[in-house]
Amino acid sequence: MHQRHSFALAVLAVMAVAPAARADTVPVLVDEVGRSAMRDARQNPLFAAEFARAMANVEAARQAGIQVPVPKDPGGGYTHEQHKRNFRALYDAGALYAITGDKVYVDFSRDMLLAYAKIYPGLGPHPAGRGEIPGRLFWQTLNDSNWLFYAIQGYDAVRAAMAEKDRKIIEDKVFRPMARFLSDGSPRNFNLIHNHATWAVAAVGMTGYVLRDRNLVDKALLGLDKSGTAGFLKQVDQLFSPDGYYEEGPYYQRYALLPFIGFARAIDQNEPQRGIFQRRDGVLLKAVRTTINLTYGGLFFPLNDALKDKGLATEELYQAVAIAYARTGDTGFLSVAQGQGRAVLTPDGAALSAGIAAGKSTPFAFTSQNLGDGPDGTHGSLSILRAGTGPKHQALVAKNTAQGMGHGHFDKLSWIFYDNGAEVVADYGAARFLNIESKAGGIYLPENKSWAKQTIAHNTLVVDEASHFDADVKRAQPVAPTPLFFHADDDMRIVSARMDGAYPGVTFTRTMALLGHAELDRPVVIDLLKVASDRPAKLDLPLHYRGHIMDVGFPLSSNTDTRPVLGTASGYQHVWVDATGKPEAGNATLTWLLGDRFYTYRFLPQAGATAILAESGANDPKFNLRREPILVQRLEGAKAASFVGVLEPHGEYNGAAEFTLRGRTRITGLTHAEGTTGDIVTLTLTNGARLRLAVSADPARETWHEVNVDGRPIRWQGPFARVDEKP
Amino acid sequence: MHQRHSFALAVLAVMAVAPAARADTVPVLVDEVGRSAMRDARQNPLFAAEFARAMANVEAARQAGIQVPVPKDPGGGYTHEQHKRNFRALYDAGALYAITGDKVYVDFSRDMLLAYAKIYPGLGPHPAGRGEIPGRLFWQTLNDSNWLFYAIQGYDAVRAAMAEKDRKIIEDKVFRPMARFLSDGSPRNFNLIHNHATWAVAAVGMTGYVLRDRNLVDKALLGLDKSGTAGFLKQVDQLFSPDGYYEEGPYYQRYALLPFIGFARAIDQNEPQRGIFQRRDGVLLKAVRTTINLTYGGLFFPLNDALKDKGLATEELYQAVAIAYARTGDTGFLSVAQGQGRAVLTPDGAALSAGIAAGKSTPFAFTSQNLGDGPDGTHGSLSILRAGTGPKHQALVAKNTAQGMGHGHFDKLSWIFYDNGAEVVADYGAARFLNIESKAGGIYLPENKSWAKQTIAHNTLVVDEASHFDADVKRAQPVAPTPLFFHADDDMRIVSARMDGAYPGVTFTRTMALLGHAELDRPVVIDLLKVASDRPAKLDLPLHYRGHIMDVGFPLSSNTDTRPVLGTASGYQHVWVDATGKPEAGNATLTWLLGDRFYTYRFLPQAGATAILAESGANDPKFNLRREPILVQRLEGAKAASFVGVLEPHGEYNGAAEFTLRGRTRITGLTHAEGTTGDIVTLTLTNGARLRLAVSADPARETWHEVNVDGRPIRWQGPFARVDEKP
Repeated sequence: MHQRHSFALAVLAVMAVAPAARADTVPVLVDEVGRSAMRDARQNPLFAAEFARAMANVEAARQAGIQVPVPKDPGGGYTHEQHKRNFRALYDAGALYAITGDKVYVDFSRDMLLAYAKIYPGLGPHPAGRGEIPGRLFWQTLNDSNWLFYAIQGYDAVRAAMAEKDRKIIEDKVFRPMARFLSDGSPRNFNLIHNHATWAVAAVGMTGYVLRDRNLVDKALLGLDKSGTAGFLKQVDQLFSPDGYYEEGPYYQRYALLPFIGFARAIDQNEPQRGIFQRRDGVLLKAVRTTINLTYGGLFFPLNDALKDKGLATEELYQAVAIAYARTGDTGFLSVAQGQGRAVLTPDGAALSAGIAAGKSTPFAFTSQNLGDGPDGTHGSLSILRAGTGPKHQALVAKNTAQGMGHGHFDKLSWIFYDNGAEVVADYGAARFLNIESKAGGIYLPENKSWAKQTIAHNTLVVDEASHFDADVKRAQPVAPTPLFFHADDDMRIVSARMDGAYPGVTFTRTMALLGHAELDRPVVIDLLKVASDRPAKLDLPLHYRGHIMDVGFPLSSNTDTRPVLGTASGYQHVWVDATGKPEAGNATLTWLLGDRFYTYRFLPQAGATAILAESGANDPKFNLRREPILVQRLEGAKAASFVGVLEPHGEYNGAAEFTLRGRTRITGLTHAEGTTGDIVTLTLTNGARLRLAVSADPARETWHEVNVDGRPIRWQGPFARVDEKP
Repeated sequence: MHQRHSFALAVLAVMAVAPAARADTVPVLVDEVGRSAMRDARQNPLFAAEFARAMANVEAARQAGIQVPVPKDPGGGYTHEQHKRNFRALYDAGALYAITGDKVYVDFSRDMLLAYAKIYPGLGPHPAGRGEIPGRLFWQTLNDSNWLFYAIQGYDAVRAAMAEKDRKIIEDKVFRPMARFLSDGSPRNFNLIHNHATWAVAAVGMTGYVLRDRNLVDKALLGLDKSGTAGFLKQVDQLFSPDGYYEEGPYYQRYALLPFIGFARAIDQNEPQRGIFQRRDGVLLKAVRTTINLTYGGLFFPLNDALKDKGLATEELYQAVAIAYARTGDTGFLSVAQGQGRAVLTPDGAALSAGIAAGKSTPFAFTSQNLGDGPDGTHGSLSILRAGTGPKHQALVAKNTAQGMGHGHFDKLSWIFYDNGAEVVADYGAARFLNIESKAGGIYLPENKSWAKQTIAHNTLVVDEASHFDADVKRAQPVAPTPLFFHADDDMRIVSARMDGAYPGVTFTRTMALLGHAELDRPVVIDLLKVASDRPAKLDLPLHYRGHIMDVGFPLSSNTDTRPVLGTASGYQHVWVDATGKPEAGNATLTWLLGDRFYTYRFLPQAGATAILAESGANDPKFNLRREPILVQRLEGAKAASFVGVLEPHGEYNGAAEFTLRGRTRITGLTHAEGTTGDIVTLTLTNGARLRLAVSADPARETWHEVNVDGRPIRWQGPFARVDEKP
């Protein structure tokens, strides 16, 4: 009871101070309604835990004493990590003051910021400077933006309680020069249409609101020249597609999201008339939802440069989920927050924790989704096909997107597949060990360029052992696949796209479907990749699967005691060759075990085709690469080719209970028939039933197509159809 | 309410039937007190779930109709799996009848057993017969023993409720001939001192009790000639060491345990005067406790032929844990059962589930333990050193045991190490995919002999590229290491043993310690392996670690584009060589990342030593092997050598939160000094502190030893001491 009473007094103290201070120090990022909600939310477990975490964090910083070292170290080093700790502590101290009114947090923030005021004005480019524009506190400007983004939010909360002379020093020697450095001082970065610039404009813009500096706000919103050709609003319009997809891909979408959502919240608080959350049909909130849907098992689809252990449980998304819940009331966000196990110390975090405490949580709707890429949604697409629900559901992801700038990979029409809680057909992600000093200082490894970005490291067509666009991002950036069709319901999950321009004179079209059948354990992936080249070419189709080989259907010639590499460049130098074979239609199968489930990949080898069983990790003297298995289908001297495959999850291996169920495929035949306007892929199942997938590149829904299969015409209407035949 | 009422009537029905039946059909394996406890236990969730599972199982079998096929298929095939399903169904039906008194279970059992009566008398050796004595129902006699073991228990419960003519057919045509086949019909198997024989004697002995056939019981207890030179009692005396260690190792200990404990329970029920659970100071219950302590993270130490996914959650142990709890009342068993998530449908399972429901569960005491091997405990030892508690604790296991018969590996003085919930220094276990038809029919693979059993596949000394005892089990079986000392408390966890006879003219002594220090994140493993040979020899010391290499301290010569193998025989043919180097004292380190933790292995290379970075998987055209990394220290032409190493877990990698802590070792120096009667290994830590481990092969506690270190004498008393020096 005594505690509660003191708390009430503390609240009154805050309210008493605020009006007494000059009007322009009233907090602008969190209002009194929000602060009150935060105070109340301490009764909710998730918010209470966050409050306790922040208390412990600031208390540890106070015990350690103010440490504001002269910047020296690169990422992972002491000064880098200390300045990161400091902005977190400033952020937390602000939130704690807003909640408790305890002056100790004001004093702590003042002391730390005054220490920054001593060193900041004298800092030049960081000695370990990296990238075109080195930071001041950190090696990268980006990290300086992070610092300001968090620190200014903390400062907003304590500013009114500081003596004017301290405020003046802090603002003149830290916040204003920092905002100046990040804006006018780094014009190339600030005016980019890129997530690094979003961090800069968000930090500068919030600083503008807090310091009542309209000039900074306008530059942040409209670019340095305030014309609107750069700045936050342009970024919102350009960087997300209408479906809320961010062109660099899921990993960077997660990272980019925070400054977008965080700054949007500040704008909404200070200039609600802008309707920032309604802009472009509410694209920012769509982006939060899309970001969450770009995951499986809580981890992001590892497309482009992506660390594979990154997922929903990450700082950036705690904020985004809280803000999205507070703005939409969609209780699906509550279950995401429960999965994250975190709230944030903001009014939105308070609302989130209250919703959870009230038992309002519902499962988030992970869905099949066709996400247009590019500002108008027509620059390719990322297509997600899901079957089933829950942690073991299936997800097929077709990467039919545009390049996605410098972090993009050369992987047009590639795919990944999840089943049974695991990535079964995989994307390597980035070659990087973040912040591990012994691994090139923790930045992207040389193998990111020589392997991870190259086409052979993905599940898509390689022509003449060269990567798409010769791995030249400038050539790749303007070109995108042409989406042909997408459909997703329980009977038919299918996506198709065409790629022109990845190689001169080569067009390839890929149709992927995820189809169930009563005779099969669960839906199977059907893949039809058709290639047309204006010259005879060498065509390689890699499949990066995960698991241990159980059975190879065709005879192999094995490299058992010396192991050669597959090639010399474009990533081929990183591929060990275990064995090669000449599969035929009847025996072209590869069965592997992953977790407790079997997978059989069955393909239809074209005349003269070779199958190569391989593994990543050659030419890697520093052990920078993971070693993962690959199946490559190779066809030489071909002008036209159809790669047809089906991936079937089946059976169960239970080592603990010592039983094995259905370790053999239930598909006994795979055929392909080609007509003038379409194709039919036929699976024959163990009971004699047939499942036929008919597709046409003509998207017209009313057109009829006909293909002869075994001398019998089969007709269908529209771009795709499923024809089931009983035994 | 109606349900409860019918249930009470059903109970009365059982009680009414039992006295009416002839006296010699009263159930002998479970008495009325036990049945009553089982009926009551249905209110406890764990028992209720087991009850429901059994109901569903029998109901499914009833729906499918009685299926008793003529035996044909090997393990994994239809007839094999069907006969397994049948004995489970017979067992469950008996338990369900004991609980519910529902005649449907009697009818089901009768119908199935009458179907067996039709085929069994006509069966010869199984057509897919395997091993020296093929079974009748199954390919192996062992499986026939399993069938009888379960089926006779089920039959005991329903026997009294069957018509006499049915009983006569079933007993004359199934149980008696089966018991005859497994005893007099298979004398070599029955009289073995081996777990296969334990299954046979347990099945035959229980059949004897149920059929009131004293002759069968006596043969089971005392061997076919009833002399006591074979049979169950001899097995109890011979197969477990006084500490309850089973010579084949943890994996087979688990498997062997069930017939021991199950038959012991039957003996105790029928001949309590034998005091079977008190025999040899209660060795059978000790064996249950020891079996549980032979695990980490719920999985068995994968020593000898072992499947690595096998652990506590397995049928055999559900029974053993229940019986041990019922006999001892040790509430630590309750937490094991909770981890298993299972009970059993017996009076012991009833007691277990009641204990859990009453909240009596306490953590099982996983401890450091020195387990003597062999019938009198002097034939080597298995030594477990544990530091910390809970799922992330550390465990160092020194395999100083004897050979362990046909499933033993040639791995004298090898070790494994667990930390942070994972196997860090690993044992390959068996090369086998149990029950997977495409992998050699699911039996042990050829690579089990050519790789998994060989010395190079373990973490111990290989001389001249040959395995211990030239991989000859007959030579290996009589020889065991000599344990020197073992000690385990918070300051000092240490074990030492000497091996003579693994190679002619070669003696090696290994001392391993797990020591903590305030300057270190957590305890480190110190390893001192001393070799004396009567001729110059090539000495290899492999380290099978798990994780991804982060840093190699010494220069490497890498096989980047063709990869050779290490050798041609004794497992060397399965080792790919990635790189070799010539480390020196100052740079002999290898750092890897496993999960979220770093590990640095630092060693002290002897003059001329080579380090080989390698991987398993060469000469494996069928992809039967896992590919796992190895560090081999090699010294050529040596007569005496000391291999000194320290393994240090350190730091944290957090990919989700993007930070790395202490990615570098905190040990800056490792030295070794040798005296006439002892050795000192010294670690120098980052703050300048020194941790010295002094050891002597002389086990006398009062003897003083002295070794000069850097010109300064250091003295200690007894076989080991720890000398800490401040910075």
